[in-house]
Amino acid sequence: MLKNIDLTREVPKAEYKRLKGDANLKLAALQRQSQALGIPIIVVFEGWSAAGKGTLINEMILPLDPRGFSVYSARGPTEEDAFYPFLWRFWKRTPTRGRLAIFDRSWNRRLVTDRVEGLIKGERLRQSFDDIRSFERQLGDEGVVIVKCFLHISKNEQKRRFDALRSSPATAWRVTEKDLRQHERYNEYLAAAEEMLTETDADYAPWTVVEAHDRRFATLKIFGTVIEALERGVAAVERKAEVSALSTVEPVSAGNMFKTSALDHVDLSKSLTPEEYAARLKKAQAELRELEHEIYLRRVPVVIAYEGWDAAGKGGNIRRVTQNLDPRGYEVVPVAAPNDIEKAHHYLWRFWAQMPKAGHITIFDRTWYGRVLVERVEGFCTEAQWRRAYREINGMEQHMAHFGAVILKFWLHIDPEEQLRRFREREGMPHKQWKITDEDWRNRQKIDQYREAVEEMLYRTSTPYAQWTIVESNCKRHARVKVLETVCKAIRKRIG
Amino acid sequence: MLKNIDLTREVPKAEYKRLKGDANLKLAALQRQSQALGIPIIVVFEGWSAAGKGTLINEMILPLDPRGFSVYSARGPTEEDAFYPFLWRFWKRTPTRGRLAIFDRSWNRRLVTDRVEGLIKGERLRQSFDDIRSFERQLGDEGVVIVKCFLHISKNEQKRRFDALRSSPATAWRVTEKDLRQHERYNEYLAAAEEMLTETDADYAPWTVVEAHDRRFATLKIFGTVIEALERGVAAVERKAEVSALSTVEPVSAGNMFKTSALDHVDLSKSLTPEEYAARLKKAQAELRELEHEIYLRRVPVVIAYEGWDAAGKGGNIRRVTQNLDPRGYEVVPVAAPNDIEKAHHYLWRFWAQMPKAGHITIFDRTWYGRVLVERVEGFCTEAQWRRAYREINGMEQHMAHFGAVILKFWLHIDPEEQLRRFREREGMPHKQWKITDEDWRNRQKIDQYREAVEEMLYRTSTPYAQWTIVESNCKRHARVKVLETVCKAIRKRIG
Repeated sequence: MLKNIDLTREVPKAEYKRLKGDANLKLAALQRQSQALGIPIIVVFEGWSAAGKGTLINEMILPLDPRGFSVYSARGPTEEDAFYPFLWRFWKRTPTRGRLAIFDRSWNRRLVTDRVEGLIKGERLRQSFDDIRSFERQLGDEGVVIVKCFLHISKNEQKRRFDALRSSPATAWRVTEKDLRQHERYNEYLAAAEEMLTETDADYAPWTVVEAHDRRFATLKIFGTVIEALERGVAAVERKAEVSALSTVEPVSAGNMFKTSALDHVDLSKSLTPEEYAARLKKAQAELRELEHEIYLRRVPVVIAYEGWDAAGKGGNIRRVTQNLDPRGYEVVPVAAPNDIEKAHHYLWRFWAQMPKAGHITIFDRTWYGRVLVERVEGFCTEAQWRRAYREINGMEQHMAHFGAVILKFWLHIDPEEQLRRFREREGMPHKQWKITDEDWRNRQKIDQYREAVEEMLYRTSTPYAQWTIVESNCKRHARVKVLETVCKAIRKRIG
Repeated sequence: MLKNIDLTREVPKAEYKRLKGDANLKLAALQRQSQALGIPIIVVFEGWSAAGKGTLINEMILPLDPRGFSVYSARGPTEEDAFYPFLWRFWKRTPTRGRLAIFDRSWNRRLVTDRVEGLIKGERLRQSFDDIRSFERQLGDEGVVIVKCFLHISKNEQKRRFDALRSSPATAWRVTEKDLRQHERYNEYLAAAEEMLTETDADYAPWTVVEAHDRRFATLKIFGTVIEALERGVAAVERKAEVSALSTVEPVSAGNMFKTSALDHVDLSKSLTPEEYAARLKKAQAELRELEHEIYLRRVPVVIAYEGWDAAGKGGNIRRVTQNLDPRGYEVVPVAAPNDIEKAHHYLWRFWAQMPKAGHITIFDRTWYGRVLVERVEGFCTEAQWRRAYREINGMEQHMAHFGAVILKFWLHIDPEEQLRRFREREGMPHKQWKITDEDWRNRQKIDQYREAVEEMLYRTSTPYAQWTIVESNCKRHARVKVLETVCKAIRKRIG
């Protein structure tokens, strides 16, 4: 969940003032409503040293009724705490109905700091993942609204901040030996944080990564996230029922514009000349042919998943991947709407059945991600269903990864103008007219909702074992070569 | 879940015929209803070799519409299967809406046979637990009714059956080398089965242990279990809502009389003479005093939980345990109905807060099990809440066990006659009148419902890390000595 994140996002001062004013009022009102309805709330702040947790927590509590919340700072267990199992001190601090508990660091510390520092590992580390999931699930089952924020800054930004603090005697003490050690081992911490975010992300306790270089941006994003979670909590209690599919696309608070985006900064101008294309394509295809043989001998299964906008060029791209392959070693599975038999099963059923066997490649032309894309946007499943689908999908991919599979997921990205150009072109060419349907035009109308769904998919299902690759596809030549080369690289890496 | 089980239960032939006829009709009707409502059903048969899985599966399918079910025999992965991750072949076989899939052995094989045979261990074994839980949860979330039966026979019974089969050339081939190996390692298999039952028991996919010495008993128990699960599934779909608390105590099908009972065969005539009592009490108290010191030095926390019928003698029993202890090393926590602050938290919150710290003993006079006893029977929580409480409670106790705690749970058992005698005695003695209230008499009225709740509690929360001990308490002297000696033994075992 930390890949493809643009940490440089900013909010100008004037804009901030206006939005922050609104957000203050909204948050205060929601706190009163939650008190009246007896909804307990937990907000967790995790993230890098010097990411600004203290400042941001202060911002958050300013508009709140001070009788309604508590802030807990959990930098490490006290001597007393050490006499108890690690979740004990957090259970003690879970909020009563109607109250808000803010945790400055939390139980998750065990999965990152304690882990990287070698205080916990192996079986005990696995137990901690289980214990934490079970803890959060129990609270969620009883109606606690749980918001978890991870404040993210880059290694360079962290260094800049440490240097600034250390340059003045008044603040130098704030940078500890431990902080510096963390900085040196930034990449190890990053990997541990990534696993924590993946493994403990759940519909009842989702993670929000907060880009924290710009304090104003981070503040507004946190406010937006908390406001949205509380709105959902209040709505659920008021309806005394599961939030229905109809509410899926309701316009939400300020949160939206601060959502993490993997698509905003994709450079769609990337392109290849025909000559360069021909040379690199040929080379990559030849290599993939050899690798196909290698994985067959070593019985490595390979999953290649294609998703992307309509007319992004999936078909042509897939053809370039398979063009030179031995047809006995791969299969292309086109995924349409489920048929009646498939509809009568769990939505993942048909994909399980089509997974490659050891030594083979399966290429999916559209995938199980339909659940969190078209089914979400069109209301073909309930909100509860698509929300838990992220975890279910990650579970399936993890199971394949445990089995030794290489998993590649490509999002073929084009901008709306390019899409329109291609739609028009198809309409104008008799042999391509079949490719453009009324549905394509309808989907285009809902582009904002689709985009939101795509962003959330890229965010919640980018896992250490199954990364998304965003493929700039305005230039088809570039897109084809990028996919081929990415596939080759991943397989090469796997077979060492 | 395999402790305290009476494997010798039988059903007479005449009784069997009558009940089986009813059960056949009921099961057939429920199958039709499930078909009409589109409810998918999975029934899993696991258990010992020679426990009679084949015969019992045949019994079960006889009354069914053959177009509505499939039987899958999964003795091991085929050569083809081995090319896929282990859940792959089971995903393929999950039933469509309205169909019933019966598994003769299943994915659980991995957690027992494969584990004991050393085919899977360590990290991969842990992953398999996770994968299986996630698999069953996904199906449960989508409305699949899941019934899991474990056919249980003793080591002696297995030997008897193998011998019988081998004594005739016509059947000798049915006993394989593998079967004999399993028999030799019965205790290892037992421990693995116990962990499987504990770790994969869930509200959406509960385990039923079937006493399989008597074929008639086993058949009826399986029918009862499947019938009850289908009735619940049908009711849930028809109400399109969570089953409400009001349905908790609805009289259920034939299943009830075949429930596993830990209480039926408790020998309440056990007693001690005053002289024997005095001697053993003194000895055990002295030993516990020494052990109290030991655990303090070694920082071992000890949890002693008391539950039992009203007037079973908890108070007096606890006093004998603590009589000789250093008061700085232990605490007695009396548990009453939750106060307002406690009510405003998760029900486990207050117990987390009272857990012993390392090196100390905490004795709970009534416990967190109130959730699945009084709260269940009196409707103070919803059915969904108490059903998931077994897993939540096991989770809490496991967390304590991970931390190194010794956990002892005592059920003080008396029969209704003895209870009545004690109630009357209390009423007749002025200084004991406060001990008997209208509530006690009211609880007595609901004795059958309480008993059902107690049996299910003993069954679902007897785990490898926190066993229940049933204490025969008609004779208070016996009960006190048994608790003291059990505590000493467990602590001795722990500190080695």
